[in-house]
Amino acid sequence: MPGLSHLLFTNATIEGLFTAEAQVRAMLRFEQALAQAEAAVGLLPAAAAAVIAAECQQPDWDVAALARQTLLAGNPAIPLVKMLTQRVAQHDAEAAKYVHFGATSQDVLDTALMLQLQSALAFIDGQLNELLGALATLATAHRDTLMMGRTLLQQARPITFGYKVAGWLDALLRARERLARLRAEALVLQFGGAVGTLATLGEQGPAVAAHLASELQLAAPLVPWHGQRDRLVELAAALGIVAGTLGKLGHDVVLLMQTEVGEVRESAAAGKGGSSAMPHKRNPVAATFLVAIAGRTPALVGQLLAALPQHEHERAAGAWHAEWDTLPALCSLVAAALTHATDLVRGLEVDADRMRHNLDLTQGLIFAEDVTAALMPHLGKTAAHQLIETASREAPRQGLALQAYLRQQPQVTQHLNNMALSVLFDPAHATGLSQYFTDQVLARFHASAASI
Amino acid sequence: MPGLSHLLFTNATIEGLFTAEAQVRAMLRFEQALAQAEAAVGLLPAAAAAVIAAECQQPDWDVAALARQTLLAGNPAIPLVKMLTQRVAQHDAEAAKYVHFGATSQDVLDTALMLQLQSALAFIDGQLNELLGALATLATAHRDTLMMGRTLLQQARPITFGYKVAGWLDALLRARERLARLRAEALVLQFGGAVGTLATLGEQGPAVAAHLASELQLAAPLVPWHGQRDRLVELAAALGIVAGTLGKLGHDVVLLMQTEVGEVRESAAAGKGGSSAMPHKRNPVAATFLVAIAGRTPALVGQLLAALPQHEHERAAGAWHAEWDTLPALCSLVAAALTHATDLVRGLEVDADRMRHNLDLTQGLIFAEDVTAALMPHLGKTAAHQLIETASREAPRQGLALQAYLRQQPQVTQHLNNMALSVLFDPAHATGLSQYFTDQVLARFHASAASI
Amino acid sequence: MPGLSHLLFTNATIEGLFTAEAQVRAMLRFEQALAQAEAAVGLLPAAAAAVIAAECQQPDWDVAALARQTLLAGNPAIPLVKMLTQRVAQHDAEAAKYVHFGATSQDVLDTALMLQLQSALAFIDGQLNELLGALATLATAHRDTLMMGRTLLQQARPITFGYKVAGWLDALLRARERLARLRAEALVLQFGGAVGTLATLGEQGPAVAAHLASELQLAAPLVPWHGQRDRLVELAAALGIVAGTLGKLGHDVVLLMQTEVGEVRESAAAGKGGSSAMPHKRNPVAATFLVAIAGRTPALVGQLLAALPQHEHERAAGAWHAEWDTLPALCSLVAAALTHATDLVRGLEVDADRMRHNLDLTQGLIFAEDVTAALMPHLGKTAAHQLIETASREAPRQGLALQAYLRQQPQVTQHLNNMALSVLFDPAHATGLSQYFTDQVLARFHASAASI
Amino acid sequence: MPGLSHLLFTNATIEGLFTAEAQVRAMLRFEQALAQAEAAVGLLPAAAAAVIAAECQQPDWDVAALARQTLLAGNPAIPLVKMLTQRVAQHDAEAAKYVHFGATSQDVLDTALMLQLQSALAFIDGQLNELLGALATLATAHRDTLMMGRTLLQQARPITFGYKVAGWLDALLRARERLARLRAEALVLQFGGAVGTLATLGEQGPAVAAHLASELQLAAPLVPWHGQRDRLVELAAALGIVAGTLGKLGHDVVLLMQTEVGEVRESAAAGKGGSSAMPHKRNPVAATFLVAIAGRTPALVGQLLAALPQHEHERAAGAWHAEWDTLPALCSLVAAALTHATDLVRGLEVDADRMRHNLDLTQGLIFAEDVTAALMPHLGKTAAHQLIETASREAPRQGLALQAYLRQQPQVTQHLNNMALSVLFDPAHATGLSQYFTDQVLARFHASAASI
Repeated sequence: MPGLSHLLFTNATIEGLFTAEAQVRAMLRFEQALAQAEAAVGLLPAAAAAVIAAECQQPDWDVAALARQTLLAGNPAIPLVKMLTQRVAQHDAEAAKYVHFGATSQDVLDTALMLQLQSALAFIDGQLNELLGALATLATAHRDTLMMGRTLLQQARPITFGYKVAGWLDALLRARERLARLRAEALVLQFGGAVGTLATLGEQGPAVAAHLASELQLAAPLVPWHGQRDRLVELAAALGIVAGTLGKLGHDVVLLMQTEVGEVRESAAAGKGGSSAMPHKRNPVAATFLVAIAGRTPALVGQLLAALPQHEHERAAGAWHAEWDTLPALCSLVAAALTHATDLVRGLEVDADRMRHNLDLTQGLIFAEDVTAALMPHLGKTAAHQLIETASREAPRQGLALQAYLRQQPQVTQHLNNMALSVLFDPAHATGLSQYFTDQVLARFHASAASI
Repeated sequence: MPGLSHLLFTNATIEGLFTAEAQVRAMLRFEQALAQAEAAVGLLPAAAAAVIAAECQQPDWDVAALARQTLLAGNPAIPLVKMLTQRVAQHDAEAAKYVHFGATSQDVLDTALMLQLQSALAFIDGQLNELLGALATLATAHRDTLMMGRTLLQQARPITFGYKVAGWLDALLRARERLARLRAEALVLQFGGAVGTLATLGEQGPAVAAHLASELQLAAPLVPWHGQRDRLVELAAALGIVAGTLGKLGHDVVLLMQTEVGEVRESAAAGKGGSSAMPHKRNPVAATFLVAIAGRTPALVGQLLAALPQHEHERAAGAWHAEWDTLPALCSLVAAALTHATDLVRGLEVDADRMRHNLDLTQGLIFAEDVTAALMPHLGKTAAHQLIETASREAPRQGLALQAYLRQQPQVTQHLNNMALSVLFDPAHATGLSQYFTDQVLARFHASAASI
Repeated sequence: MPGLSHLLFTNATIEGLFTAEAQVRAMLRFEQALAQAEAAVGLLPAAAAAVIAAECQQPDWDVAALARQTLLAGNPAIPLVKMLTQRVAQHDAEAAKYVHFGATSQDVLDTALMLQLQSALAFIDGQLNELLGALATLATAHRDTLMMGRTLLQQARPITFGYKVAGWLDALLRARERLARLRAEALVLQFGGAVGTLATLGEQGPAVAAHLASELQLAAPLVPWHGQRDRLVELAAALGIVAGTLGKLGHDVVLLMQTEVGEVRESAAAGKGGSSAMPHKRNPVAATFLVAIAGRTPALVGQLLAALPQHEHERAAGAWHAEWDTLPALCSLVAAALTHATDLVRGLEVDADRMRHNLDLTQGLIFAEDVTAALMPHLGKTAAHQLIETASREAPRQGLALQAYLRQQPQVTQHLNNMALSVLFDPAHATGLSQYFTDQVLARFHASAASI
Repeated sequence: MPGLSHLLFTNATIEGLFTAEAQVRAMLRFEQALAQAEAAVGLLPAAAAAVIAAECQQPDWDVAALARQTLLAGNPAIPLVKMLTQRVAQHDAEAAKYVHFGATSQDVLDTALMLQLQSALAFIDGQLNELLGALATLATAHRDTLMMGRTLLQQARPITFGYKVAGWLDALLRARERLARLRAEALVLQFGGAVGTLATLGEQGPAVAAHLASELQLAAPLVPWHGQRDRLVELAAALGIVAGTLGKLGHDVVLLMQTEVGEVRESAAAGKGGSSAMPHKRNPVAATFLVAIAGRTPALVGQLLAALPQHEHERAAGAWHAEWDTLPALCSLVAAALTHATDLVRGLEVDADRMRHNLDLTQGLIFAEDVTAALMPHLGKTAAHQLIETASREAPRQGLALQAYLRQQPQVTQHLNNMALSVLFDPAHATGLSQYFTDQVLARFHASAASI
């Protein structure tokens, strides 16, 4: 059993899609589809294809032996093809000649990876969809919940919590569209034979490739891509962006959960994050995991990108091998993050009172600019500015909120009565387009959800 | 003057687009467009907007002072807005009140970056187009030039040089389309005010934003993105892929230029790569630079990706600042690589004789599989296999090419006459779909070129 | 002029050490020392060495021409050696034959880099020393200043501010020692000739190398290291650790400067970080730059590390070239960070009152564990625990501090009188070894300072 | 079962050291040593410590439950301490109060990691030692085996194969020393309690820490390092350098195994790397894995480095968690690489004839510089140069080796007779200090081996 923290950083479904057993099944799907495609265009007898196909569907493969033989062979396709050939030969020596016909190790390994990614990305899309739904619910519920906006971690101006959530939602909507596009474009068949020229198949090559792509529901590339790995990098980057965006969400939550801020809390399910010794603490848990996962994914993306120039000639000696575990690991990390994020968002306890309270922390100083603007037409810019600058310094010294202080200043009150001042100091009047933007993002979410 | 190797890793045009002077101009374009957009919707007097606009177009800005003040202010927008306000005030005190109205530092800095990227990516697109043309010419010229295909750096099966070039071209066509899509989607206006809510503008916010986006020819985002930086990461990844793909091209050339391979050479212009001490050497130069640049770009992409979760709340304290130089540096590295690549491709000396010679290095062993296949119908699989396995071991021991050895074996000659053997050992019959794939990629290039 | 933010991310002294001019000077120092070393062992006439040496000290080098020629030659040493040879030849044709005798491009370029790093690291050591002094002063001044310790950004238990500063100081003391060790071990001469065998020099090779190393004050490696670049990686990692440690310092300061925390502020020098519109804001500036720089350095370290396996055979085609700008850039970023950090530390305004105030935010809940421990001997573990758990829930509901609530509970007061409770709730009694650890680190600082 | 390629990238021994079970054992070692250390200084009754210690040595821990509870608790220490407390309580309720006394989660987790790293690094040191021995044997055997040195992948000047091996050996000797130093310096106890101040232990803190460090054979740090993670980064970098250096070895072997070079081969054990279809191929296998592993490690190092500034205050929310799997993964990758490398080096087939043959590929042009130098005293520099430049162009045109051509030139033969020319063209006279440097490195290896 791997380390105690394994469950935090992995997703069981994704791990299941990338076990040795699943990899063998994906490779056999390729071999079966290959034999059938070649039979369809007449390159091999239908009977031989049937025997190969039948064998590919058998459940009893010695996966452990394949893993061991990979160490000597240099890649997992060599022992698999050998084992398949032997098994087919036990039924039909003639058919055994056609196993893997015209294909090369990288064809079966790359295509198997694509098939596994197909499943993994479909699963991740489902997770994303759930999370988006949870975020939309949260944004809707808190469309009007007032809170401070913060820049450089300084209180700046009021926003609504719905607006903050809409920012997360907007980025994740883009992330989902990005992945959807790549599922259609970047999951492509690999089929080229030894050096990518399909030399063994003669003129039937393109027809076989077309059959294969169609059967495996993969896009058909213009040419084999044994040495051109940009699609994998683009996919990795898109997954890395999901993790990074969830990391930002988690980081924001960690910051909002600070004892001194206290505006949200993770749900207290089953003592989660609690501390019997320190009853005041509610530690971020899922949010912490989101930050941690976002800290681990960029390296994996960077590795694939850095490998691009190392793919020598028609197949790389090392750069290709270095890829094998990377996209699976990325998918698992991202899926783990999506689970944490959905748990977090669904259970998030929002303390609207504390948010409101924090809006008053500066005793009205955050509205100094608004009062200045309101006084300008009456006093001119310079005088208005100086007056409020002085007031902003003096009010705290006298232990007064800025509004209370200003109500004592005739220069102010002759132009702005108490009601006018109240409006200027009311955060609900200062959130600008918070709700408008929230509504825009929610509309886009609903349109996107409807279109699927 | 920066280090002696500066010119290798930079592009003068791109550097020109990202100087302090150019940055100031881009920031002033934003400020001008902002005033005009706000005047258009009635938020400020047309006269004030005209004064501001006029000042933004003045040429005499103390850029060095702005750079110095950036150190204290924390970002370049603060001193620029201050300087602009002072300059406008000298003409019209009233107008000065409206400078930068409703905007925040990050609005002007992010939008200025977008404007600079707009120019940089247009330039890079032109470079890519030139390179693609050069590659298409090269692929066309060598559509039928025979050479060895190599996997794991071992000779494998024949291809044509055109096919190898088509592989580079195919990846770069994708790279160009990727960048074209991102120019349309990822170059977006930033405009949100202090915390992204456009609070100062009231209900006119969306209208002003629309005017601004249209005037600056940037896409309009659904919401401000001060803390959501995924588009920049996607753009960086696309640029990194260009560099990585060019690095693969360079790496392939370095390998083909090896003394022991000698199939291509960089042009010998003006003693390039030559060595008076070692007359036999023709060092790769541009190819080496391509590898070097591809070694430097992934780190920059990774930096932006790793920063995603660090963008706190409505504006980051550090993660945003860390971005500033990164996309400019990436653009310059990529543009430098494109220049090196185009020079390299245009001047590439292809030694078709040496390619042909290298096809014979294994004395026919690369065709062992073909002969086995040809003998199978006559001898059965096992016997054919054993015969050729023995032959492959014996021929080299006797100092014979495999074909010559087989011509002495009655078991072979009774089924395959000399002419049949000649065909089997003719690399020109073994290139499979090399030409077909080359034609496919060229057709796509021409279609893509026509569509622009 | 580079972008407006250039000054934030660079150090002028370091930039001066890595200009093209400085690089030429460093290369000429190598060539001069080489000629003199070879003359010393009799490999070339003393007169020739004198002419070469004299020419190397001339001030008038056409650096721009060398930079341009580097593009064609592939590296800067080729045109420099050519230019030096021509210049020497104008004085003494015989001497010109001995220029660069037995050396190769990489010898002069690597050694020049080492000489430049020698100066850069000495400068950085001086900066580090200054910063350490400033930190020691700060830790001493606030050895007893009470504040909250925070884990997972939750208030946990009291510490002193001196203890927090001591943590920064401790890591930076290690960082300085690490760099000092590497200055002695990792700054080594490169001298091997074409393939590292000093073939041209015959048996005098080792003697020349020893002279060179001694003259240039560089360590002498066991063998040339054209293709083994681990020392550069170790050096880069050590520099990256400095930046990362300063980033942690900056990040801590950013967090302490939050409006809701407000325990420290950057100095208000000349409107630094201020905002006329928002009088309550004091933005982190230097702290933000520290975070930003720490966000940029890991990529540079990673690049050098990733390049290790790409250094082919006796000299790399690309991996070497990719290194050229990287250590200079790292040095400049680190030196910029050190300047920001020293400014920050020296000017830091510590609000001990706010720190004390924040200790009371949880109304005594942070001491619940202590009271439980104090009651255990009287009530048993379970009862003590339940009592305090209830109290921790009830006290906030009644709007009472925990201590005030407990003074009303007979179960408590019969065992702990008011004075005993006061002590338990006094943060000054809860800082544990804060002062002890601070003293330990300060002692180490003083010992380290004394030893230099 | 993980993917089929799992065995390539992992080491079973290292994986065994980092299982959940091993982690639990390491955590219990800490808890046991803690109780005993605290008993030793009188902080808890000896009897209680004995009960705790006995329980820590029990074999039956529900590791799966701990892994599950980690998800809710946020880290593995919380459920472990809870479980240990419950188990101890079943024997002795009083003793249960003292479990984990004064410690915090991060103390036990960080120290457990250190204990696991202690074992892992000892194992890796043993592996390194074996590899160094194999390399020393190889360098000794081929001390005088002539081969071409290559720069920028161009043939440059002769070296010996022993010299090339000595280059690998030299870098790995440094790598081993680096790790040995870090085992002594960087493996340190973590013990600070909640915020690192050991507040619960009173003045006994330092004594307990000293006992603990001594018992666990870990270095004692000056202060707790919950938020200062530089030692882990330094360790990661040192491991990354091992992988990178092995990657260079693997890369060199891949290049030497190229069909067109053919100077070495991996051992042909059990069909390793062979291809029945392509009898001429001997694919690199172990060398390929070395390149692949070196492609994966830099990302892990970079991740730890990039996290340094993210360790907030007295314990990080995310950055710490992101570390947990990284050093274990690095150790496993490095150990896997060491196994591949030792297999590779021990089985390497060196084709000295092919090396000798490749020295003649340029038909003597590689010696042009030597002949020029030999003619200079007779003809002057310019004339000698021109003569050989012409000869280097003409000889190939006439299909002659340079030496044969020169024997026909009276200008040459009047100064250099056939014997003199033979010497100039003898690669054995051109290897310079190849053997000297090899001997130097071997001497250092033997000294280092003797010192252990």
